[in-house]
Amino acid sequence: MGDLQTDQGESLDLQYVPVTEFHRLLGSDPLTRLGSRGLTPTVVAAFAALARINTLYMITGAWSGHIGTSFSSLEIMSWLFLNEIRDLEKGDDACDVFVSSKGHDAPALYSVLIGLGLLDEAMLQQLRRLRGLPGHPHVETPYVQANTGSLGMGISKAKGMVLANRLAGVERRVFVLTGDGELQEGQFWESLGTAATRQLGEIVAIIDHNRIQSDTWVQDVSPLGDLEAKLRAFGWHVERCDGHDVAAIERTFRALDAVPQKPKVVIADTVKGKGVSFMEGPALKAGELYAYHSGAPKEEAYTAGMTELLATANRLFAELGLGSVQTEVTTRNPRREPRTTENLIAGYEQALVRQGDRRKNLVVLDADLIKDCGLVSFAKKYPDRFIECGIAEQDMVSMAGGLARRGALPIVHSFACFLSARPNEQIYNQCSEGTKVIYVGSLAGLIPGGPGHSHQSVRDISALRGVAHLSLVEPALEAEVQSLLDYAVTSAPDSMYIRLVSVKWPVPFAYPHQHKVEPGRGWVVRDGSDAIVFGYGPWLLANAFEAAQEVEQSTGASVRLVNLPWLNRVDPRWLREVIGGRRYILTLDNHYLKGGQGEMLATAIAELALEPTPRILRVGVTSLPECGTNDEVLAHHKLDVASLVKSMRYVVPQIA
Amino acid sequence: MGDLQTDQGESLDLQYVPVTEFHRLLGSDPLTRLGSRGLTPTVVAAFAALARINTLYMITGAWSGHIGTSFSSLEIMSWLFLNEIRDLEKGDDACDVFVSSKGHDAPALYSVLIGLGLLDEAMLQQLRRLRGLPGHPHVETPYVQANTGSLGMGISKAKGMVLANRLAGVERRVFVLTGDGELQEGQFWESLGTAATRQLGEIVAIIDHNRIQSDTWVQDVSPLGDLEAKLRAFGWHVERCDGHDVAAIERTFRALDAVPQKPKVVIADTVKGKGVSFMEGPALKAGELYAYHSGAPKEEAYTAGMTELLATANRLFAELGLGSVQTEVTTRNPRREPRTTENLIAGYEQALVRQGDRRKNLVVLDADLIKDCGLVSFAKKYPDRFIECGIAEQDMVSMAGGLARRGALPIVHSFACFLSARPNEQIYNQCSEGTKVIYVGSLAGLIPGGPGHSHQSVRDISALRGVAHLSLVEPALEAEVQSLLDYAVTSAPDSMYIRLVSVKWPVPFAYPHQHKVEPGRGWVVRDGSDAIVFGYGPWLLANAFEAAQEVEQSTGASVRLVNLPWLNRVDPRWLREVIGGRRYILTLDNHYLKGGQGEMLATAIAELALEPTPRILRVGVTSLPECGTNDEVLAHHKLDVASLVKSMRYVVPQIA
Repeated sequence: MGDLQTDQGESLDLQYVPVTEFHRLLGSDPLTRLGSRGLTPTVVAAFAALARINTLYMITGAWSGHIGTSFSSLEIMSWLFLNEIRDLEKGDDACDVFVSSKGHDAPALYSVLIGLGLLDEAMLQQLRRLRGLPGHPHVETPYVQANTGSLGMGISKAKGMVLANRLAGVERRVFVLTGDGELQEGQFWESLGTAATRQLGEIVAIIDHNRIQSDTWVQDVSPLGDLEAKLRAFGWHVERCDGHDVAAIERTFRALDAVPQKPKVVIADTVKGKGVSFMEGPALKAGELYAYHSGAPKEEAYTAGMTELLATANRLFAELGLGSVQTEVTTRNPRREPRTTENLIAGYEQALVRQGDRRKNLVVLDADLIKDCGLVSFAKKYPDRFIECGIAEQDMVSMAGGLARRGALPIVHSFACFLSARPNEQIYNQCSEGTKVIYVGSLAGLIPGGPGHSHQSVRDISALRGVAHLSLVEPALEAEVQSLLDYAVTSAPDSMYIRLVSVKWPVPFAYPHQHKVEPGRGWVVRDGSDAIVFGYGPWLLANAFEAAQEVEQSTGASVRLVNLPWLNRVDPRWLREVIGGRRYILTLDNHYLKGGQGEMLATAIAELALEPTPRILRVGVTSLPECGTNDEVLAHHKLDVASLVKSMRYVVPQIA
Repeated sequence: MGDLQTDQGESLDLQYVPVTEFHRLLGSDPLTRLGSRGLTPTVVAAFAALARINTLYMITGAWSGHIGTSFSSLEIMSWLFLNEIRDLEKGDDACDVFVSSKGHDAPALYSVLIGLGLLDEAMLQQLRRLRGLPGHPHVETPYVQANTGSLGMGISKAKGMVLANRLAGVERRVFVLTGDGELQEGQFWESLGTAATRQLGEIVAIIDHNRIQSDTWVQDVSPLGDLEAKLRAFGWHVERCDGHDVAAIERTFRALDAVPQKPKVVIADTVKGKGVSFMEGPALKAGELYAYHSGAPKEEAYTAGMTELLATANRLFAELGLGSVQTEVTTRNPRREPRTTENLIAGYEQALVRQGDRRKNLVVLDADLIKDCGLVSFAKKYPDRFIECGIAEQDMVSMAGGLARRGALPIVHSFACFLSARPNEQIYNQCSEGTKVIYVGSLAGLIPGGPGHSHQSVRDISALRGVAHLSLVEPALEAEVQSLLDYAVTSAPDSMYIRLVSVKWPVPFAYPHQHKVEPGRGWVVRDGSDAIVFGYGPWLLANAFEAAQEVEQSTGASVRLVNLPWLNRVDPRWLREVIGGRRYILTLDNHYLKGGQGEMLATAIAELALEPTPRILRVGVTSLPECGTNDEVLAHHKLDVASLVKSMRYVVPQIA
């Protein structure tokens, strides 16, 4: 899979706290102990300190994960699981419910569950691995009660759970942990009203008010204003406390006991990255973007961070007369990375600035993903034409619609999974106005496989392909990013959706610079006379390229590989030409087969009524995307080179 | 098109106020007069009274439209267009902007624009007609600045407009009229924050606070709570006034002049149906549903209502010394209706109650469409298991997810256009949890053609077809509604989406009661040996049935017509069997070709690699749905019987 040649980093020893140490803290049978709900604030704080060590361990070992928001939530989460959630020992069907609405805090949650013996200790090494612990919460994990990864759904879900419980005559509290940036999502506010009018007092929401969202301060992105007043105006009982002071958390939760009828919300003032001085929000310098929202820390940061976390844990253990914390060590091997890769996001970042130079009516909109969407350069150069919308995709898209109606050319950004789905109707509405807006969805497709299916966007083509006056394209190379963006800005009569793969990938072919972008037409990546393979995007085409070479070498069958960057339109004349009598056809989708490009191509081929009848095989995603390393995920979904070789050999049985 | 046999009603004389009467009120050149912005409250009230007459005229003449919300907004809208919007005479590109966010008030807006001479008087007879005035605002109509029909987008759009204006150095105010039920949509709250922090003082929102949403009191559906406190907490300047007292409206708007920096909102307390005593909200009896939200009034209601409206107008004219109001009369002919029709919504209503009888964990959720979705009987019989969510589709779907996680079987309802798009990501999220929820989207497809493309749901299949663990089906007959709902409740392993056509239609074939529902398989509606036609749903199949008969009579070619109610899955073995060697294949979609059933079928047929190669033609929607009468719309989109005859003759050229 590409020319794996350089190593990333050195071997690194990683420390974790074994479950025996949690037992030493809690007593030999932690779950029995929980029944009493009498653990002191110091014990809870020490538990959180241990869990913080394991959180850093898991994320560093997995090479990815969300440190900042995991660290900010650990005292709250430890309090809930140690002293608040009733009947934990009866199993996750019978106890009070915990729902992480923000989802990014999954490593913290896993660390807490492992510390309590509710998840297997071996899972410490399985974060973001196939059949391990997914990057965002998934209900297949014990004690995880809701799938998250897209924001704002937690309270709605809690309401449904409470109403179902009431119908079944069961009384259970439901604790919902939200972020503060998350409150920019309209669904949060949409969900508040009926909780109050229906007196769903079983619901306790805790806002992890760490003041930083993905990129920077909530205050600078989209301020929350007078949060307490807002929440009270929606009919909720509001408390506020220091979310790292366990004694204060205890007082706050006991105050809630006096308000049985009303849904309750605790604003927990926390610090993003709490526990490691240089990861903490207040360490952020003016104009700097926060570095520990997602991704693994660099080696030095890991080592320095772990030193601080251990010191805190040891201090708390000493206070409790438990001596020092014993840790175990595993070794993380260096990660092999290809030397040369196509980096579409970096390519997009440059291309966007160039378009901005030329077009003074070009306006860029972002939903709190300025780094991941490649917008930093544009925002720096043209701050007046950069609109940070916050985590508010519906609002962003309708704003773009308004901008376009008044003569601007808006380019709208988010991850493909969110952009295609959350404001799906708003995109349709904008396109129905006949204006031009360019949508750019990054993180498209099956990989990176770490975040899990909430982020693996493999149904965005389907979700948007029926929108009138919207063309969908996906570039395979940095040069193609530039061409397609230029086409979208300069030539396209209507709106466009540019689907961007975010993983860097070594691509063994170049962009044919003489190629002219024309709707529904692609270009030949490598030639061959016996069969034809259609695909799009960097890694899909790169894998197909290698597979075609291997098939050619091993069977003698020669395969034409075609890049069709248009995802919802194909020119039938071009199609007939490019097939050129080849009878064996393979279509590849970095998307579900349902609604993907292969379906469009198979339909167009059927309508061509070619004689003799060609043999068509479509390859793509057919089940919910698995979470795992990129290699694991591609192999599981049969889109790695070896699987593509098999598919190609299957489709050309007469030759191979 | 069906056995048109009974007449609906008698001929009815309808009165309207010609534009000359508006001129008499305003002076000969109303637009010049507007520059002065000095029209007295009585003149504005009289203008509103005339516009109300024309609103009732248009809706009654069109046999459909939204009376209640049009009447409640007329004083506000008249005030805005007569005394508030600057530079109206310079054209809609150069004046202050009016955005109707609620959209239902389109007839009121048209009446005001016609009264001012900004729209042609002949348009009074063109409401909801092809190339006339669409049922919901569309930017192709002069002075309409945004497409609406789906709620909650207005302030977002206004923000975009203001930001574009600022970039262009233009200063324009933007007035946004919202409903009060509309405030249940999360996007409204999502949009408020940045308007305040960016100090978009150009925006003035007016909430038409008429207290009734589609079905009943806002208070009973999902109360708004302390609305002023909420809006203030979001950083907006809030005023409140009687929305029918023009003098109060004037005082309120002048008070806004003192607050240039902040976005402003006026809560206008109004009366739904204002102006006709028995249409007014307060006339609603306890437990009764509001009858004048949508649809034309019955004849007696029209006559009695017009008498009241004329009396008011005459009184105001007399006060102004203008004598009595002169009206013109046109005659509405009776509408011909078929005697026997399939009414899928009525069939669904019964079937739902029966399922509720059997399954005590079945819970019904609604988003303020209790009548239109056929839920009244269930809600009456099982009030504890009926959850009215209000206009909050995202919240509704995630609630259903929570209910399902705790053992309930939720059935979620809205119009197909909203249900498939607004909570698109929430549906994906729920399905990813592996629970079962049944989604029922009514008002599916191209007709009724009156509401316009915001409501004509012809991309819901596409928007949902890629969701894993979700099957989409569409019944053609009441009996099939019952079968498919029973399958969904009893047998389906996963979630299902039931797509329901709401128009009643005479269907010339019966349900084969021996048919067993099996995924991906359909049944033969009529047999024939030369060609095969696939379709689904009542009118599509009924029209195809008639067309097939006609083709058979005129050409001798015999056509097999197949109903495949499964929209995103097909069993290839069944498909091969049912095609049975026929070489001429036509697929029909009450949906865009992109992402419709035809695409799935053509793909499956291509994969069957039938020899000799079959000829395939797909017929379906290919452009944004037009607004018009059902006949106009079907003919325009070539899905009426005559067009289908042509398609069938085209696909079987060798025979016909």
